[in-house]
Amino acid sequence: MPWYNSQIGVDILNLNYPDGRKFNRPSNKPTLSTSAKKKILFGDRGMTLEEEINESNKYYRSHDIAVIYKKPTPIQIVKVDYPKRSRAVIKEAYFRQASTTDYNGIYNGYYIDFEAKETKHKNTFPLKNFHQHQIDHLKACQKQGGICFVIIKYVLLKRYFIMPAQNLITYWDNQKHDGAKSIQFKQITDCSIEINSSYNPTLPYIKAVQQLIDSEKEK
Amino acid sequence: MPWYNSQIGVDILNLNYPDGRKFNRPSNKPTLSTSAKKKILFGDRGMTLEEEINESNKYYRSHDIAVIYKKPTPIQIVKVDYPKRSRAVIKEAYFRQASTTDYNGIYNGYYIDFEAKETKHKNTFPLKNFHQHQIDHLKACQKQGGICFVIIKYVLLKRYFIMPAQNLITYWDNQKHDGAKSIQFKQITDCSIEINSSYNPTLPYIKAVQQLIDSEKEK
Repeated sequence: MPWYNSQIGVDILNLNYPDGRKFNRPSNKPTLSTSAKKKILFGDRGMTLEEEINESNKYYRSHDIAVIYKKPTPIQIVKVDYPKRSRAVIKEAYFRQASTTDYNGIYNGYYIDFEAKETKHKNTFPLKNFHQHQIDHLKACQKQGGICFVIIKYVLLKRYFIMPAQNLITYWDNQKHDGAKSIQFKQITDCSIEINSSYNPTLPYIKAVQQLIDSEKEK
Repeated sequence: MPWYNSQIGVDILNLNYPDGRKFNRPSNKPTLSTSAKKKILFGDRGMTLEEEINESNKYYRSHDIAVIYKKPTPIQIVKVDYPKRSRAVIKEAYFRQASTTDYNGIYNGYYIDFEAKETKHKNTFPLKNFHQHQIDHLKACQKQGGICFVIIKYVLLKRYFIMPAQNLITYWDNQKHDGAKSIQFKQITDCSIEINSSYNPTLPYIKAVQQLIDSEKEK
């Protein structure tokens, strides 16, 4: 039996998938379990980046620090059954590609908008992790004065970075000219703020967001 | 054949449903067609409030005025098939109740968060249109400095109002003491800003939002 048939009752919000066409296995899949020991040592209990962010958002909401949610994945519904005296059942539906980023919300008066990506590369971050419409969305939100960024998790290095959307946009747009299909690790560390993981919240990214806001103000 | 079986290929975003348990017929359903003539005269082409807002949001995005989207409805997925050489098919899923409001985004640096409701009542607006978690969400966003409100459409009166979330919260919380299960039309007009419909955008609600922001600043 393939792994996904055992996912009965699992909320889609806890699954991991990058686009509407291909439904990837969650990255807490068995093949990652080789590093399980290390994960326990580091106290992150093998969470995916999405789980870490969702946990942190719960913490931020319950402590009145920020109200940020992951948007549900858009689904195209084809067939719904309405059994008598029971709730509607979706019988045929497909994953659609989201037209925006995954997360948005508010922190201390600031509109927050970001995408979260994990990579198993060590020295590079492929730009194909993004889609044109996400870049366009980040550009549009920036124009309105939003705080926009990407959270990048280097799974093997266990390091997390907040890269300002402006840097991603620059690398994205430069692709056409310089042909670079990925961002180098050093380029990311040079323009990003590192997030140090902790117990509460799991991923204290708002602290890094505050640094980003402070540095924007200085400009 | 019931009407909904003919909805093949219709995007869920264009359907109308208030909660995860009951899937209501869209309000552009045949029973409303008695007023079709009137609708054509008034130029709104029988759109639901959701359609009017979505159309307006498209206009606002394409004119760099605001970036606001309706959040996809959360779906609980139970069974997914992965046919070879073809995209994943969701075979069993259920509508879930959203934990937040329907719309959020950014306008001119302000975090915008709102719920949209239409009613066929003329003199009253039942509070059962809302859920406790939506009220809690609006309270939390207000605390963070967001611009929070409800767009109410009186379908039969063809009038639209932006009611500040604070007023809704007050009426909601007062229920326990005064037992009032609905807000009277006069109470709504007294605390709300009316939106006048137009051609571009269909529902120029951002104009009313700006008035709301201006009046908040005066306080």
